Amino acid sequence: MLGARAVERCDALGAAPYSDMPDGLYRGWLTPAYLAAQDRLGAWMTAAGMTVRRDAAANLIGRYDGTGDGPPLLIGSHLDSVRDGGRYDGPLGVMLAVECVAALHAAGRRLRFPIEVIAFGDEEGSRFPAAMLTSRAVAGTLGEVPALADAAGVTLAEALAAVDSAPERLTAMRHSGALAYLEAHIEQGPALEAEELALGVVTGIAAQLRYRLTLTGRAGHAGTTAMALRHDALAAAAEVVLAAERIAAAGPEDLVATVGTLAVHPGAANVIPGLATLSLDVRALDPGARDAAAAAILAEAGAIAARRGVGIASALINDLPASPCDPVLTDLLAASLESAGHPPRRMASGAGHDAMVMAALCPTAMLFIRCRGGVSHHPAEHVDPADADAALAVMLDFIERLDTHGRLA
Amino acid sequence: MLGARAVERCDALGAAPYSDMPDGLYRGWLTPAYLAAQDRLGAWMTAAGMTVRRDAAANLIGRYDGTGDGPPLLIGSHLDSVRDGGRYDGPLGVMLAVECVAALHAAGRRLRFPIEVIAFGDEEGSRFPAAMLTSRAVAGTLGEVPALADAAGVTLAEALAAVDSAPERLTAMRHSGALAYLEAHIEQGPALEAEELALGVVTGIAAQLRYRLTLTGRAGHAGTTAMALRHDALAAAAEVVLAAERIAAAGPEDLVATVGTLAVHPGAANVIPGLATLSLDVRALDPGARDAAAAAILAEAGAIAARRGVGIASALINDLPASPCDPVLTDLLAASLESAGHPPRRMASGAGHDAMVMAALCPTAMLFIRCRGGVSHHPAEHVDPADADAALAVMLDFIERLDTHGRLA
Repeated sequence: MLGARAVERCDALGAAPYSDMPDGLYRGWLTPAYLAAQDRLGAWMTAAGMTVRRDAAANLIGRYDGTGDGPPLLIGSHLDSVRDGGRYDGPLGVMLAVECVAALHAAGRRLRFPIEVIAFGDEEGSRFPAAMLTSRAVAGTLGEVPALADAAGVTLAEALAAVDSAPERLTAMRHSGALAYLEAHIEQGPALEAEELALGVVTGIAAQLRYRLTLTGRAGHAGTTAMALRHDALAAAAEVVLAAERIAAAGPEDLVATVGTLAVHPGAANVIPGLATLSLDVRALDPGARDAAAAAILAEAGAIAARRGVGIASALINDLPASPCDPVLTDLLAASLESAGHPPRRMASGAGHDAMVMAALCPTAMLFIRCRGGVSHHPAEHVDPADADAALAVMLDFIERLDTHGRLA
Repeated sequence: MLGARAVERCDALGAAPYSDMPDGLYRGWLTPAYLAAQDRLGAWMTAAGMTVRRDAAANLIGRYDGTGDGPPLLIGSHLDSVRDGGRYDGPLGVMLAVECVAALHAAGRRLRFPIEVIAFGDEEGSRFPAAMLTSRAVAGTLGEVPALADAAGVTLAEALAAVDSAPERLTAMRHSGALAYLEAHIEQGPALEAEELALGVVTGIAAQLRYRLTLTGRAGHAGTTAMALRHDALAAAAEVVLAAERIAAAGPEDLVATVGTLAVHPGAANVIPGLATLSLDVRALDPGARDAAAAAILAEAGAIAARRGVGIASALINDLPASPCDPVLTDLLAASLESAGHPPRRMASGAGHDAMVMAALCPTAMLFIRCRGGVSHHPAEHVDPADADAALAVMLDFIERLDTHGRLA
């Protein structure tokens, strides 16, 4: 019942004023839609018995005190979405965390530890060209924040100033210490559905590299420049896109490479592109396989550029190591699945999650929830409310197991 | 010497009061800068021995009588520019026409035919959303003038009223008849420079097709969708870009295909592109070659989409016919190049020019002049004064050949 309510709440946040685009869902960090969603979430947290605060990264945190005042169990996920994305990637984990506390509060149950429900602001990196800024700030691993601007030219500093914060304050952040971090999230892949399982226990998160490539050719009149005399930045970029695809397809099944953005300048039908900028995302469970593939793609891109007389520059935007979940917590979570009658399917995550960043702060555990067709980052993203109910029951059982676990003694 | 003066005069018209923008050149039809430039040009025409008039389209025309009173040889180009454009695209052809007459006048030479130097007002279409209005009026092919307004909301009717004209008067115009139209223009491409040639003979202006292609794949999470399961719209688009390049490169030299715009949706580094939209511009002197190339590219794009399980739609945006230059005049012009020691390099124009419109009125010939780096529509546009001298000598020789040519007898 309460799991189904978590799904309903994600749906309620799926459109205006909680979306920054008219016919679909886009909720970027620090946008009007993001702040509106926080207001709504804050009210739900309060109703569930939590006290609510916003940290310097504009993450929303609801606290439910325990009988002791040791470090809290953090439960959460992210509130932002990709452009034209789905309603559950991120928010479902936040809403299930709220329902955990709502259920405890309704039962008058206090644990030995406090619980903090945390809704991160930037996991997807869909507004500024960097991802997981907000969990990195909480984990204290952000370091100096580079100068970033969104597609409209608004700088990160300007966006943070609007919520009375600043990049330096993110750099200076670190959570005072946590007992553990638990995250529930849709699988975003087809494995659970194929095996007719509602839930899975995540063993770890794939290593991820992200680059920005800039190809500099020569703009020219589309009608007057013979093919042989061109230095077309887009044609070079097209070859890079296909090289990335070919190299990843030749590797192990978990190796993936994606060019998700490509911008062309000056961008007129009658002008040969002089500049092309693209993103390159490479992931694999084995960091060695990932690094080898990325190196092969960059080498090939360099050769393509040289052959075409086009300049090339690459900038490493993100290097996220593989992040194993905590073995003890993973076993506890698997036990919770088994006791509820779910086969304790263990699986790796090809997608990055805030949990991989939070592992620098405390032990982590992750629960995957089946999503229809494995579809995510798409308006068709769908979760069965019954699966969300099952997830909530497992999370509550996990919290109780953690409360009685020797590690806390 | 006089060719170099033509370049100097273009430079003199490159800034206030002959430009409508403060730090660069923009001269729109009927603007204050345009009228100021006409005043200056009128004085130069008068000094070169011409009588000056302005027609109902506010084109400036200088007439130099011949010994006979048959139809005149028209020599000209346009006085307007694109925004933040170069100083020679258009004006150089006008100034060289003035120098032709100045040289004849200084030598006391009269031809059997009158010469009219014509400076067109609107070739670029940079003020009102339509191009070549003024040469179409002169050629009598304009038809009814649509209701147009510039970016500031000034209507064409208002702008014409300020010069005592009106749209109906443009519609009613047609030159009384011309012997031929000669236009000198910068190449706006790199071919002449690459071959170390100052001049080229234009054989005709390319036929132009423009399409918009839409590729519809399936968006998905960049981390969780194995390469084999993807329907990546950008990867499909990349193949189309390279197919267009390959097919055009395999054709005749004047066949060009350009993808100048490419937009990716949703456009995030961690999302497999679900949608890609691109422009396709195909040009060739021979409409058959153009149409065959466009058909081959579209067929290949269809095969790429089918193989990848990606949807494809194409929309025809523009279909402009080719305009061949007159073969007899082109041979005369080539002979003038040869007699001056220039290899008579024949080339198609991929860009549109007033000559393509004037072909409806009379036979046309065009001379291309090398421009540095093939750069045009840009402040860096540059012409070597020595090349302008060479062009002037060839134009004068062409005029003499025309005077003795049997066609006039």
